[in-house]
Amino acid sequence: MKAVGLVVEYNPFHNGHRYHLAQAKRLTGADVVVAVMSGDFTQRGEPTILDKWSRTLAALQNGVDLVVELPVADAVQPAHRFAMGALSLLNDLQVADVVFGAEHPDWDFAAMVKAEQDFNQAAFHQFNNTYATQFNQQLEAVTGHALTDPNDILAFAYHRAKAAGDFGFHLQPIQRVDNHYADQQLTGAISSAGAIRQAVKGHQDVTETVPVQTASALAKLTTIPNWEQLYPLLANHLIQTPAPLLEQTYQVKEGLENRLKEAAERHRDFTSFLKAVKTKRYTYGRLMRVAFYLTLNLSDQDMANYHPYHRVLGFTAAGQAYLHQVKKELSYPLITKVNQRMKNAELALDYRAGKLYQFFGTPEQDLTRGPIRLV
Amino acid sequence: MKAVGLVVEYNPFHNGHRYHLAQAKRLTGADVVVAVMSGDFTQRGEPTILDKWSRTLAALQNGVDLVVELPVADAVQPAHRFAMGALSLLNDLQVADVVFGAEHPDWDFAAMVKAEQDFNQAAFHQFNNTYATQFNQQLEAVTGHALTDPNDILAFAYHRAKAAGDFGFHLQPIQRVDNHYADQQLTGAISSAGAIRQAVKGHQDVTETVPVQTASALAKLTTIPNWEQLYPLLANHLIQTPAPLLEQTYQVKEGLENRLKEAAERHRDFTSFLKAVKTKRYTYGRLMRVAFYLTLNLSDQDMANYHPYHRVLGFTAAGQAYLHQVKKELSYPLITKVNQRMKNAELALDYRAGKLYQFFGTPEQDLTRGPIRLV
Repeated sequence: MKAVGLVVEYNPFHNGHRYHLAQAKRLTGADVVVAVMSGDFTQRGEPTILDKWSRTLAALQNGVDLVVELPVADAVQPAHRFAMGALSLLNDLQVADVVFGAEHPDWDFAAMVKAEQDFNQAAFHQFNNTYATQFNQQLEAVTGHALTDPNDILAFAYHRAKAAGDFGFHLQPIQRVDNHYADQQLTGAISSAGAIRQAVKGHQDVTETVPVQTASALAKLTTIPNWEQLYPLLANHLIQTPAPLLEQTYQVKEGLENRLKEAAERHRDFTSFLKAVKTKRYTYGRLMRVAFYLTLNLSDQDMANYHPYHRVLGFTAAGQAYLHQVKKELSYPLITKVNQRMKNAELALDYRAGKLYQFFGTPEQDLTRGPIRLV
Repeated sequence: MKAVGLVVEYNPFHNGHRYHLAQAKRLTGADVVVAVMSGDFTQRGEPTILDKWSRTLAALQNGVDLVVELPVADAVQPAHRFAMGALSLLNDLQVADVVFGAEHPDWDFAAMVKAEQDFNQAAFHQFNNTYATQFNQQLEAVTGHALTDPNDILAFAYHRAKAAGDFGFHLQPIQRVDNHYADQQLTGAISSAGAIRQAVKGHQDVTETVPVQTASALAKLTTIPNWEQLYPLLANHLIQTPAPLLEQTYQVKEGLENRLKEAAERHRDFTSFLKAVKTKRYTYGRLMRVAFYLTLNLSDQDMANYHPYHRVLGFTAAGQAYLHQVKKELSYPLITKVNQRMKNAELALDYRAGKLYQFFGTPEQDLTRGPIRLV
């Protein structure tokens, strides 16, 4: 059996995703579709609108054969680490191709990766600009293109990860239309995930844009998971923890802990808190992730203890057969059911993230839960 | 000027308190009434129904002349430390008498304190009983009385603290009627604080039982501060913090950290959480305080760094004159206005407790706030 791999968030799973995976399967002639999916928090550190189980079910019922969770340690990360985490799993799962959308699928991303090797790293220390800005200045000078669209940035990161990891699959970018407008407003049956989330928040009807499984899960939501609800947990942690201890948090260094602490003491909602800590040096994405790391009390030690694994969230009959085909050759451990020992050991971070997500009123996310079987 | 001292929570300030302080003044022939009052959290670690400023205002408008805050490090404590903390301040403030209610004011509490010195301390290690139970077994054998009523317990603690601190004031117990029934139901114009809080929760009219200042503050409440609201902060702290770090929390030792952590992972409301951690060894009062210490992330180090001070919350003209009379001879520092330096230094714990209380939507409790002046 031949597999095509996808890296997804499915936040939520919509018609565009169904179209994209059918296209990926057709393009590559694959027998099965393997998706590595973020859990209950996105790359930007935001809670997903539906939990990972609802999203897995919708994916399985609409063409995906195997859903593996991207562990939170790699999921809530900037593009380069997110890409490396996801592609390491897909490579280990022996997919033949990885298909992904990009705003400019015709660009030579592999050449960009080669060009990067000659960049002047010493010039990256302008602390009044983000790393991304400085990187793009150099990239544009060499290749004529700057990476400003989110999926182009990921496309570059995938090529970079493939080169660094010497992965065996083929990378296949396809056209993705994603613009600022499309992320704000519904555009018919194929609408963006961002537009769909906005519409749900505004109590608009989205049934035209998503499969029935997503529609029914969205209809059951009593609250839309968001950072404002988690903010008291973050703020109290910042207020009550001495700065030297906060500095043991992953990515919280160089005085950022004091800035965050001061802002938490002054601001009562997440939006004004974020505005107060924003500087040119840190993007909103970075600060949202830092907020997540703090609320999870994610330490440098926690990250050092993390090792990747395949956490299976669900499969179809074809997915099960494929898993059976590859499982003897996997380098990373395969986890199907989470037990008491795992929750305090290799799975601790995902377990803690699931507990955090449960404050939105969702059921237990991990302990004793096995894969969804659509067989 | 001669002062009478009171140790109070005023949760909330009601007619019984007004009657009690007038009686205290008359009995002792005092010119001014000095109250040492808990801040925003009670001895049991519960948030007060009104913040310390509303309670100070009501007290000043109804006969108290000077309100000094009992710092949270001494306020949220079992009777013996609570009593020592409060009486140390009153002694330093040179009050001539301390008047307090007891269920049995005729008992010879001083003799009980003397009797305690001969108790067999070695017999106090039955871990299946609370310290209080074991103490009472010995006390009853010697004096014929057991301390079971809350104000009798405090009366004993006051006598014990006076002996230990060699305080100069006279202790004056007066009759206090407080029974289980009175704490549940309103009993007319003089009702208990517990009954008044219950009535407010049940949207009953309490105007007959409290002075107008309390009534108007209660009428403005949009939410009644309670532990259920703070529980997500506590639960997430327990879930996300490794057990060895939790053990650095004040009073969290000997495996209690694991028991608390496990309960936080399983229970979604404070009531069922508390029930799950309850054992014969720990009273509910103790566990509520532990919940407070954890949510405040109060460490052994924090407690070691704490030193008492007089934080003035408010005064009348007479109170101001009295403060002027004694202030040159105070052993503890006098704090009127809280500044930026203090919030991270000597006043850090009260500042953090105030920030925790602000999650109920109240205004800033400490920074830049000076005493209420009813002059």
